[in-house]
Amino acid sequence: MTKQLNAEVEIVIGSDSDWPVIEKTVQVLKDFNVPFCLKVLSAHRTPDAVADLAGNAQESGLKVFIAAAGGAAHLAGSIAAHTILPVIGIPVDSGSLNGLDSLLSTIQMPSGIPVGTVALGKSGGTNAALLAIQILAISSPDLSKKLIKYKNEMKQKVKKGDSLIQSKLEKYK
Amino acid sequence: MTKQLNAEVEIVIGSDSDWPVIEKTVQVLKDFNVPFCLKVLSAHRTPDAVADLAGNAQESGLKVFIAAAGGAAHLAGSIAAHTILPVIGIPVDSGSLNGLDSLLSTIQMPSGIPVGTVALGKSGGTNAALLAIQILAISSPDLSKKLIKYKNEMKQKVKKGDSLIQSKLEKYK
Amino acid sequence: MTKQLNAEVEIVIGSDSDWPVIEKTVQVLKDFNVPFCLKVLSAHRTPDAVADLAGNAQESGLKVFIAAAGGAAHLAGSIAAHTILPVIGIPVDSGSLNGLDSLLSTIQMPSGIPVGTVALGKSGGTNAALLAIQILAISSPDLSKKLIKYKNEMKQKVKKGDSLIQSKLEKYK
Amino acid sequence: MTKQLNAEVEIVIGSDSDWPVIEKTVQVLKDFNVPFCLKVLSAHRTPDAVADLAGNAQESGLKVFIAAAGGAAHLAGSIAAHTILPVIGIPVDSGSLNGLDSLLSTIQMPSGIPVGTVALGKSGGTNAALLAIQILAISSPDLSKKLIKYKNEMKQKVKKGDSLIQSKLEKYK
Amino acid sequence: MTKQLNAEVEIVIGSDSDWPVIEKTVQVLKDFNVPFCLKVLSAHRTPDAVADLAGNAQESGLKVFIAAAGGAAHLAGSIAAHTILPVIGIPVDSGSLNGLDSLLSTIQMPSGIPVGTVALGKSGGTNAALLAIQILAISSPDLSKKLIKYKNEMKQKVKKGDSLIQSKLEKYK
Amino acid sequence: MTKQLNAEVEIVIGSDSDWPVIEKTVQVLKDFNVPFCLKVLSAHRTPDAVADLAGNAQESGLKVFIAAAGGAAHLAGSIAAHTILPVIGIPVDSGSLNGLDSLLSTIQMPSGIPVGTVALGKSGGTNAALLAIQILAISSPDLSKKLIKYKNEMKQKVKKGDSLIQSKLEKYK
Amino acid sequence: MTKQLNAEVEIVIGSDSDWPVIEKTVQVLKDFNVPFCLKVLSAHRTPDAVADLAGNAQESGLKVFIAAAGGAAHLAGSIAAHTILPVIGIPVDSGSLNGLDSLLSTIQMPSGIPVGTVALGKSGGTNAALLAIQILAISSPDLSKKLIKYKNEMKQKVKKGDSLIQSKLEKYK
Amino acid sequence: MTKQLNAEVEIVIGSDSDWPVIEKTVQVLKDFNVPFCLKVLSAHRTPDAVADLAGNAQESGLKVFIAAAGGAAHLAGSIAAHTILPVIGIPVDSGSLNGLDSLLSTIQMPSGIPVGTVALGKSGGTNAALLAIQILAISSPDLSKKLIKYKNEMKQKVKKGDSLIQSKLEKYK
Repeated sequence: MTKQLNAEVEIVIGSDSDWPVIEKTVQVLKDFNVPFCLKVLSAHRTPDAVADLAGNAQESGLKVFIAAAGGAAHLAGSIAAHTILPVIGIPVDSGSLNGLDSLLSTIQMPSGIPVGTVALGKSGGTNAALLAIQILAISSPDLSKKLIKYKNEMKQKVKKGDSLIQSKLEKYK
Repeated sequence: MTKQLNAEVEIVIGSDSDWPVIEKTVQVLKDFNVPFCLKVLSAHRTPDAVADLAGNAQESGLKVFIAAAGGAAHLAGSIAAHTILPVIGIPVDSGSLNGLDSLLSTIQMPSGIPVGTVALGKSGGTNAALLAIQILAISSPDLSKKLIKYKNEMKQKVKKGDSLIQSKLEKYK
Repeated sequence: MTKQLNAEVEIVIGSDSDWPVIEKTVQVLKDFNVPFCLKVLSAHRTPDAVADLAGNAQESGLKVFIAAAGGAAHLAGSIAAHTILPVIGIPVDSGSLNGLDSLLSTIQMPSGIPVGTVALGKSGGTNAALLAIQILAISSPDLSKKLIKYKNEMKQKVKKGDSLIQSKLEKYK
Repeated sequence: MTKQLNAEVEIVIGSDSDWPVIEKTVQVLKDFNVPFCLKVLSAHRTPDAVADLAGNAQESGLKVFIAAAGGAAHLAGSIAAHTILPVIGIPVDSGSLNGLDSLLSTIQMPSGIPVGTVALGKSGGTNAALLAIQILAISSPDLSKKLIKYKNEMKQKVKKGDSLIQSKLEKYK
Repeated sequence: MTKQLNAEVEIVIGSDSDWPVIEKTVQVLKDFNVPFCLKVLSAHRTPDAVADLAGNAQESGLKVFIAAAGGAAHLAGSIAAHTILPVIGIPVDSGSLNGLDSLLSTIQMPSGIPVGTVALGKSGGTNAALLAIQILAISSPDLSKKLIKYKNEMKQKVKKGDSLIQSKLEKYK
Repeated sequence: MTKQLNAEVEIVIGSDSDWPVIEKTVQVLKDFNVPFCLKVLSAHRTPDAVADLAGNAQESGLKVFIAAAGGAAHLAGSIAAHTILPVIGIPVDSGSLNGLDSLLSTIQMPSGIPVGTVALGKSGGTNAALLAIQILAISSPDLSKKLIKYKNEMKQKVKKGDSLIQSKLEKYK
Repeated sequence: MTKQLNAEVEIVIGSDSDWPVIEKTVQVLKDFNVPFCLKVLSAHRTPDAVADLAGNAQESGLKVFIAAAGGAAHLAGSIAAHTILPVIGIPVDSGSLNGLDSLLSTIQMPSGIPVGTVALGKSGGTNAALLAIQILAISSPDLSKKLIKYKNEMKQKVKKGDSLIQSKLEKYK
Repeated sequence: MTKQLNAEVEIVIGSDSDWPVIEKTVQVLKDFNVPFCLKVLSAHRTPDAVADLAGNAQESGLKVFIAAAGGAAHLAGSIAAHTILPVIGIPVDSGSLNGLDSLLSTIQMPSGIPVGTVALGKSGGTNAALLAIQILAISSPDLSKKLIKYKNEMKQKVKKGDSLIQSKLEKYK
């Protein structure tokens, strides 16, 4: 993988099967024009690569990690163990238990090693990107403006949803 | 409440009964010398005050929100609805359901409005502070150094725990 | 949205994707000839609009709120925070966790701000309407009569279900 | 039991062991000066008495039912089966399963027979009373005023909680 | 419904949608030549009919009840409230919560009113019939013989399953 | 253990720590004067003894089994595997998981081997005895009478509970 | 079934419907060239055959058991009750409850009778075989080498997954 | 820590607070005279030490790992990621969620990296030791004999429990 120059957000996923969730993250980061890179690395299958990546992240200029995994989802926690950068975890619903295993494995971190966990699945994919952007926006007026614009656009979408529903209501009047 | 000058982290709790959890947060922020303030505000009992606080936070120089609540824990989400600052949620175990209600109410936010959620209870209290500090440390070499020091001290504590256990093992040898 | 004249029940849904559930509500209210209106509003994406709507409801002549949402379902609670009108919450199963998140986020309200919550999904959609009608029927003999008639018709439907089963039983005799 | 003259709210509990929860309900109704009565009746041990009570409620001038029970909590549903009055259910945590059994048994009612369910335990006890009062307040300007006053007093209590916390914060400054 | 002469087992289901589960029950009872009848009755929609049926069962010569329902599954408990005959409950998975609501609503009966609950779904459908037959077999040597034969046939089915698997194993040798 | 002459109900518990639950069973059986015996046997520690006991039960004149166990509660199922007598299972809450493990391990039996499961804990202890008595009462008019009397006495206890509550209500009037 | 000469691993499944899970186990054992055999046996339908198989396993040269079952999954525990060989349990998701019943029934064994339980479903199928091989590898340098090779190949697969994702990322650049 | 000469079992716990559980493990290993050592190491606080320990275990003559941890319990999985030795995981109940988080985080490992997980808490502590001994016993006739003796002693303990219960039964006769 060729690392994108000046990546500020590093996304790590445990398996390429996590793509449908992480595609949301990628799309939002791209929409906000935030430089990022994305690696497939496994806390259990390639633990040393995870340790290396996380251990060297700070000096490479990276600012935020996003990690997505399912089952006994240790990826975000493994990264957090090796870095002082903020780590955002996305639990992925990947098996019988509806993602409850992923959610609890990601969020219930012991005192001292935080993982900021977002919602299960695609909402979490989108929100991990937004949370990363909110973090970067603290020192970027440009990103702040874009976030305000994004928030306003969401309000417009709610209005569109309302219009859609009003039309469905017609036959009940 | 008199706001601490130049507060960078705003802590909000839904009830004064959340103090045992949030005391951990307060202690860590103080240890790292991060200026913060703390308010008791309720998403349901004082919704307008929450909206005001969150809506005006960015221009007051605040950088990160931390919110702790239990039950149908809407506080972090309510704040996130009114700001583009990063919001860290701490679910508090406050009733019959072992905090499962608090955890799911805090983390399962819809697409567009992220809340970075940490573990239930006191571990979450400590980790919310650390995550906030990690976020601030992105642009503060001083905080970064302190975080690295903190991480090293944790290793020492693990060693101390190990010594304690070795002494307990004596009678089994 | 043009508000239906003299609406007594205001339905609010968090997203147009909640329509399959709320269609049940709409159908029952229409069958009972209860004036209602329906808005798409989000506790997180359009919090001010929710606050406005709920805050002004009482003086506009509205009598009951029905709110449906999924995930960290704060919509009913947000409305309840801003009104003294009764609020009926419908948890919507909208993701990995089978609606357990929606159910707990809606029902586990703190002391002081009640949300009368009904069952998950379509049964809840129907029952929210019926509960609203039961509330209105306290001062409407006409609605009371219709409710008694509805209850009797349900008994007839059970009898029809019984006939259906008796015919299926034939081959086992 | 001597029925209170003109009772508008009938509270039914499955066992006298539910008193700690229902005492909250009783206190709120008394504070609002709403006439009520309270009976211990069991959906399983005295089903006919439940059926009689619920079946005759409407003509006796009653307006709202509140029912609290634990375990396979059928009390609220049994009442709802026999009346068209609104029924508010309070799930009581009464055994090993943290009240999850009570909660699901109360809320997951089939289409046609609604039970407006409030939170588990004491919060639910308070909120059931408030929800009943909100329902009665639709046609009582006096109760509406009291509810607005109650809502304002809650805001004051939040402020008091805030003061308490500010004093605890002193030693961290 | 014309009651089968001399029915010893009365099956009651809350809705005709429970047929796929109860068909298993019906099939087993027929295979064992046990006289039964089956009614669709709802604890909530036709509570009086349930009370009548259960209250008069003993003197009509009935010996065992089987009741299947989903959601806030009160049917078996409602029958048990009105009879001293043994009641077997089958929880039916009928909605979002995977039948957990049905299971807990059926089994967590209060002290004094037992419901012997079997597994969720089709296994429960089969086993409810077998449990009823085991109960009747206490005083019927003929049914006892049939049960022993059934148990032996199950062993043969396991052997058949084993043969099937051995053939699948061929390609791994 | 000296087996009680003519025991009709055999109680088996996995450990003497299950006594607080099974004492309820013992008390009820004694109250109804039903001959029983009780053994401590473990599905995992003494599997052969369980198989022997269950395998020889029918010819020894036994009529019903009651089995109580916690955790991966296989005792009732192991007995059911070796007998055609009806088996009643009591899940015992014996560890971290609030008895959810015991409940699911006891009830979710595969097709062909029923276990009639009652509620967790002491209610289940009482109800297992009552269910066994209901089964025996099918061919015992004497036990039927006692069950009817027991049911009536329960109604009296509910009335006593009501009196207790009415006295507590005094200070709210 | 003809037992494979010198089988070191005995796989037992409760039903031929468990094949999709156990095929993974079979494939891995074959890939590592570990002699095994596989039987369909049920803890509840053929308890004596399970007891015989487990009781005689040690002297037949067998070294490890693997057992897969669903629901009230007692198979692994029943085997463990009759042998001192290590038993690996695979919970199979076989019904409404997402395998939570299988998982808890398999893992929550009482003190004294361990079952080493692996993940639900196909991952568990693969991992049961690998855990058995790890156990055998303690005294087999050849198997140790193969395990190291397998671990390395997994790293390569993660790299391939990474390449796949990089290509998907192209359109986001 | 001075490593015990020739340790065959390495126990690792995430915190000295896990001692009450792991004391059971230690006691059993000592009773069987199996050489072991025990370290406090954290997957998150001392990840490199975990990697070192696990990575070098095989060549140091170690044969089996036992790891106990709570919350997002990654310790067993982290060890398994770095070794081909069998790893036994003990989930520790360490917070609000009754150990459900620990259990799922330990057991739901991805395909390729098994952790043989035992029961939550003290039963798991005992059973982890026994499972390790069963593994070592495959090539140790001496340990096999001891395991058979242990199994027999358990049967005696069950008999003692039975005697205890018989004496409690006296007053019911």
